[in-house]
Amino acid sequence: MKMRKCFCSSMIAGLVMMAVVLTGCGEAVSQQSTAPKIALAIHGGAGTILRNSMTPETEAAYRAKLEEALRTGYAVLQDGGTSLDAVVATINVMEDSPLFNAGKGAVFTSEGTAELDASIMDGRTRNAGALAGVQHIRNPINLALRVMENSKHVMMVGAGAEAFAQEQGFEMVPNDYFYTDRRREQLIRAQQEEAGEMGAVLTPALSPGADKFGTVGAVALDRDGNLAAGTSTGGMTNKRFGRVGDAPIIGAGTYADNATCAISATGHGEYFIRGVVAHDIAAMMAYGNRTLKEAADTVIMKKLGELGGTGGVIALDREGNIAMPFNTEGMYRGSINTDGNLVVEIYK
Amino acid sequence: MKMRKCFCSSMIAGLVMMAVVLTGCGEAVSQQSTAPKIALAIHGGAGTILRNSMTPETEAAYRAKLEEALRTGYAVLQDGGTSLDAVVATINVMEDSPLFNAGKGAVFTSEGTAELDASIMDGRTRNAGALAGVQHIRNPINLALRVMENSKHVMMVGAGAEAFAQEQGFEMVPNDYFYTDRRREQLIRAQQEEAGEMGAVLTPALSPGADKFGTVGAVALDRDGNLAAGTSTGGMTNKRFGRVGDAPIIGAGTYADNATCAISATGHGEYFIRGVVAHDIAAMMAYGNRTLKEAADTVIMKKLGELGGTGGVIALDREGNIAMPFNTEGMYRGSINTDGNLVVEIYK
Repeated sequence: MKMRKCFCSSMIAGLVMMAVVLTGCGEAVSQQSTAPKIALAIHGGAGTILRNSMTPETEAAYRAKLEEALRTGYAVLQDGGTSLDAVVATINVMEDSPLFNAGKGAVFTSEGTAELDASIMDGRTRNAGALAGVQHIRNPINLALRVMENSKHVMMVGAGAEAFAQEQGFEMVPNDYFYTDRRREQLIRAQQEEAGEMGAVLTPALSPGADKFGTVGAVALDRDGNLAAGTSTGGMTNKRFGRVGDAPIIGAGTYADNATCAISATGHGEYFIRGVVAHDIAAMMAYGNRTLKEAADTVIMKKLGELGGTGGVIALDREGNIAMPFNTEGMYRGSINTDGNLVVEIYK
Repeated sequence: MKMRKCFCSSMIAGLVMMAVVLTGCGEAVSQQSTAPKIALAIHGGAGTILRNSMTPETEAAYRAKLEEALRTGYAVLQDGGTSLDAVVATINVMEDSPLFNAGKGAVFTSEGTAELDASIMDGRTRNAGALAGVQHIRNPINLALRVMENSKHVMMVGAGAEAFAQEQGFEMVPNDYFYTDRRREQLIRAQQEEAGEMGAVLTPALSPGADKFGTVGAVALDRDGNLAAGTSTGGMTNKRFGRVGDAPIIGAGTYADNATCAISATGHGEYFIRGVVAHDIAAMMAYGNRTLKEAADTVIMKKLGELGGTGGVIALDREGNIAMPFNTEGMYRGSINTDGNLVVEIYK
């Protein structure tokens, strides 16, 4: 059924493309210049990701999943889907993978539970949806979209958000759906570190990078020229229950405005909230006449560090320019630019 | 005991002032030019506040309480207290008064409960504390300050925030501490309106203004030149439980940075989140070289309206300039400027 839908959409897209190519008294028009620009960028968390602590197998697994997420979202854009739909489809791939700290494989709170946050924003209308502290929603980004589309509110938290989800027909999954042994070990290590057991600090990481924080996100530009951004996370390992990071905060972890850019952030969320990082990049473009790259670099490589924060962003403007600055050792990231070139990277 | 502390502080302040006046080989120096600038502005909610729906007694009660809040916070600043302390003291007066939608007298959720949100930000460090969805904290702004000072997090919600409060020695009050008959009637009216009972719409308001939303907030400048901002609210009448508005969102309802300004917002929170209103004013000053008044007016009187939002802000910069734009019929507001002049206003 899903295949058939894709097939139909592709056929329609093909017919549209033929119409474009045959326009103007039958003369062939350069497809490159008339084809609408589409683009997509993603991240899967930033942190102390070192090449020498990564096995070839693990690195290959991350690269493959990032590429799968990119190709999934890009197919939506190619089929004429909206940037919002592309963001959701892309993030779902990473939420469903235990490799990333979002959905399945989310980090544990200090209570040994999973508490998930997510947000999404539509650059066309600047409408937005966000939720924090949910424990039973398999794909939090889908609920963020639903909050945006089907409620009069922008942000909902905890049991109230889940009551809304149930009304909207969302399946409730048990909290242990999200649990993985790797994240349980990270919690134990973090709690040992906090208790001052220095031996624990010296234990080699059982898995590379983004131990404490790390988040997934996507930004997309669709054929109508509309931007969208989304972010989904389990937050920080060993966070107090009830803690909310930047991922569900519009302006901090997520922001989209067709007039400037779409941003999704990952890193030590408290600093991203205090710096209003995502909106700061947009504002520097709007009021300071900076390019996407200049603004994103200044905010992440200079201002965030001055505040004491670590992490990175993915940024996309309406021309399809992409920037992915981070001030950590690595950031799982990838993009498909307006020429269709796919790139997946992990280290600096 | 409190009187004695004030007396001592005043004495110290007096001695400092004498030292200033007698500096420079005993020549008298203009007190105006050497005295540190202090200033304070507050709001108590924006909305459909019409002169002809307000009895003289009610108007007098609002004016008296706004003045009491201003004088309380100003005394802190005069005694050499920090802008953070002044913001908290000012907001406590309004939280404790049933006139305002914060603390005692908060509006009801659709479930008939009170759920409170608050945030505070230090312009010197850009540190911040915020909480949402608490039901048992008498003065939410005090807990926001404690989150900022005594936790590694910026934002905490619901039961997790209350568990932190208990650890910190906060008294837990029963939820019905917040209830007032006036807010119960507003809930009934809002639910009748939502159900399409048009008669309800025509019922004269039982109390003037800020029926649906309304929030309290304060911004302060202390003698060390540090800005701070804080906001506290019960949210929107008939909000779904779990809904979070702009008041606890750093960048939306509250923002402070010594480099630009301190802002506290009130109004239809969803639009303030989407517009990242508080930070947008600061960013327009930082990157667009606009004055406080130009930036605040542009964001509230132009951009917020274009998005469809209603409400206002109080804004204060490091020179002590004050702006209080709003695009509603009225906003409970007041200020004491750097010359010590006190103003309290309600209507346009």
